[in-house]
Amino acid sequence: MRRPVITLTTDFGLSDHFVGTMKGVILGICPEARIVDISHEVGAFAITEGAFLLAQAYRYFPRGTVHVVVVDPGVGTARRPILAEAADQYFVAPDNGVLSMIYLREKHKVRWVRSEKYFLKPVSRTFHGRDIFAPVGAHMARGAAPAKFGKLITDYIRLNFEKPVRTARRGWTGAILKIDRFGNLITNLPAADFPDLEARAFELSVGLETVGTFARNYAERGPGELFVIVGSSGYLEVSASQTSAAKMLGCGVGAPVELRIL
Amino acid sequence: MRRPVITLTTDFGLSDHFVGTMKGVILGICPEARIVDISHEVGAFAITEGAFLLAQAYRYFPRGTVHVVVVDPGVGTARRPILAEAADQYFVAPDNGVLSMIYLREKHKVRWVRSEKYFLKPVSRTFHGRDIFAPVGAHMARGAAPAKFGKLITDYIRLNFEKPVRTARRGWTGAILKIDRFGNLITNLPAADFPDLEARAFELSVGLETVGTFARNYAERGPGELFVIVGSSGYLEVSASQTSAAKMLGCGVGAPVELRIL
Amino acid sequence: MRRPVITLTTDFGLSDHFVGTMKGVILGICPEARIVDISHEVGAFAITEGAFLLAQAYRYFPRGTVHVVVVDPGVGTARRPILAEAADQYFVAPDNGVLSMIYLREKHKVRWVRSEKYFLKPVSRTFHGRDIFAPVGAHMARGAAPAKFGKLITDYIRLNFEKPVRTARRGWTGAILKIDRFGNLITNLPAADFPDLEARAFELSVGLETVGTFARNYAERGPGELFVIVGSSGYLEVSASQTSAAKMLGCGVGAPVELRIL
Repeated sequence: MRRPVITLTTDFGLSDHFVGTMKGVILGICPEARIVDISHEVGAFAITEGAFLLAQAYRYFPRGTVHVVVVDPGVGTARRPILAEAADQYFVAPDNGVLSMIYLREKHKVRWVRSEKYFLKPVSRTFHGRDIFAPVGAHMARGAAPAKFGKLITDYIRLNFEKPVRTARRGWTGAILKIDRFGNLITNLPAADFPDLEARAFELSVGLETVGTFARNYAERGPGELFVIVGSSGYLEVSASQTSAAKMLGCGVGAPVELRIL
Repeated sequence: MRRPVITLTTDFGLSDHFVGTMKGVILGICPEARIVDISHEVGAFAITEGAFLLAQAYRYFPRGTVHVVVVDPGVGTARRPILAEAADQYFVAPDNGVLSMIYLREKHKVRWVRSEKYFLKPVSRTFHGRDIFAPVGAHMARGAAPAKFGKLITDYIRLNFEKPVRTARRGWTGAILKIDRFGNLITNLPAADFPDLEARAFELSVGLETVGTFARNYAERGPGELFVIVGSSGYLEVSASQTSAAKMLGCGVGAPVELRIL
Repeated sequence: MRRPVITLTTDFGLSDHFVGTMKGVILGICPEARIVDISHEVGAFAITEGAFLLAQAYRYFPRGTVHVVVVDPGVGTARRPILAEAADQYFVAPDNGVLSMIYLREKHKVRWVRSEKYFLKPVSRTFHGRDIFAPVGAHMARGAAPAKFGKLITDYIRLNFEKPVRTARRGWTGAILKIDRFGNLITNLPAADFPDLEARAFELSVGLETVGTFARNYAERGPGELFVIVGSSGYLEVSASQTSAAKMLGCGVGAPVELRIL
């Protein structure tokens, strides 16, 4: 039996009916769909945060999963709905760059979804999650061929995520990509680029503090001590044992970080 | 294969075990049920907000869906559990008016659920979501005939939702029904009653501001500009581009709005 | 058809990708699993709160349900992953006491999960929810025999939950276990120990107030009046009609309560 999986990533929050309504639309079209929420707490209109959350999660889903992403400040304008194929999975989203991290990591094809027969009619001007993205995702999950939705395009929007810059032989400048629920600061410094950090002396500056301690797990250091750790995201993170590093440092997304290997 | 859908709308929030426990009860009775959350962030005891959210969502669900609604300040009192049939769907709720918007829109029948064999025993005095509404919904989803649950009644509670009042030939007074996650102010002025607003000069006053701009989508106006838009709810909404109109206007649910067509 | 149920109880919140990612892992291993969230809003690292929520919910799930619990301040340390069998259900969790209320209530067996073939590799140091607990839970749901995961142990961690102390012939001292969404204060005084409270004169002191009123339901008393009620948890709760008793009393989890039967 087919059990297609559809994920949802939106900035709709959970206090309105929006997410539930999208699920109703999906189950009406594809009753056997398994629907999984990745997150609906993406900051309102925060395209890069949506891109980051999706990029953290998609590889853990089965082949054929359809990821529906609705962070869509341009709803109702001429911005295009798109369907991307990558990593044996499908991605339905507005063409505003929210899939950029997928493009960076995976071979991909992108289509402009124009076949209105898959839309809910009349299409509202303010809720394409319900009228376009949910039904397109559901028809994909039900087995429609990607080519049915529209033609391949190459001029889709790619955002340049801030990348760390090498500023000295052993110096890099980066930024905070995301702060998670525990107050861990996720930097854009890929852990794989610094494989020997555990064995080296280093200084990582963020906010007014400089952190020179590495930890292999969150419990290794004393309560309230700041340290650098390899996060599950694959990036270096700045954390504090059993408390919020973000609160201790007073830092937010976008704050600069500086790494010096000594 | 039958894949009955059950939706849940409650004021239980997500920090307690309440919603998870209701789902355990449902899956114990009807293992094939697909459970969809509409929202659990209805304000505590906010019957009209629950009624609004349900009314926004139900039409997007497949025939036969069972909607379980638990916004229930009178739990444990003599208020009746009811089962309504409307729009080829089913609604299980306390008889406190939370289904009133369904009654207004659809032909309906209402039963007083008295058949205790469908309840979880012993029935607590404080958690009928678990002991009455979830199991009744699950038995409905499993295929029990509505008549088994109790007899038809006609004296169920109907709330009068505030309706706009015509105050002049081209003047109406209404109110804010709901503020959504994005800070859009949803009025009770049905968009269908003002089909030519886009082409007319008008003034819509709310709080200390008067808005005279119409927009077809959220991105059409400059950041921070206030405008009137036809929301996905079917009502006129007051919005601001990429920011919260509610915060700009300092308005809450119930605030009066005044519309003048010039 | 088998429709195994897996529940999730974590302190991950819903704003990150963590919960969605765990669900992707589960559906990759056990596509027919029904996944139910108990709560992801357990306070960060709050083991006893996680234990309480799980204990409130598990009995309402069908036989064979697999409960995956990830409140795990020791992630990445030598603390053991465990699999407990109790009440014809299964519990996968870190060995930090989060299953203690299950141990107190049910006959149980506990295994140390050491069979790494069920883990996602490489196992990160910071996200065992994804790499260990979700896949182990999914393999259990899929039908693997408990013994395959590891050997029985007896030295697992049991927390002593605060129990009420009898301080006089008719006097008890207890504590607030949990505050729910509605501001009800759930004490650790089992309602079954005081079966005649409804008919007795009593004083229950909490914070600066002494409550001497019993109510059978939340609506029985006037708005804002404090009363004692038998909660759905099975414990005595201090509540206020249509408002938050916790806010009225300024009390939090752990606050002492004193009961005197007069």
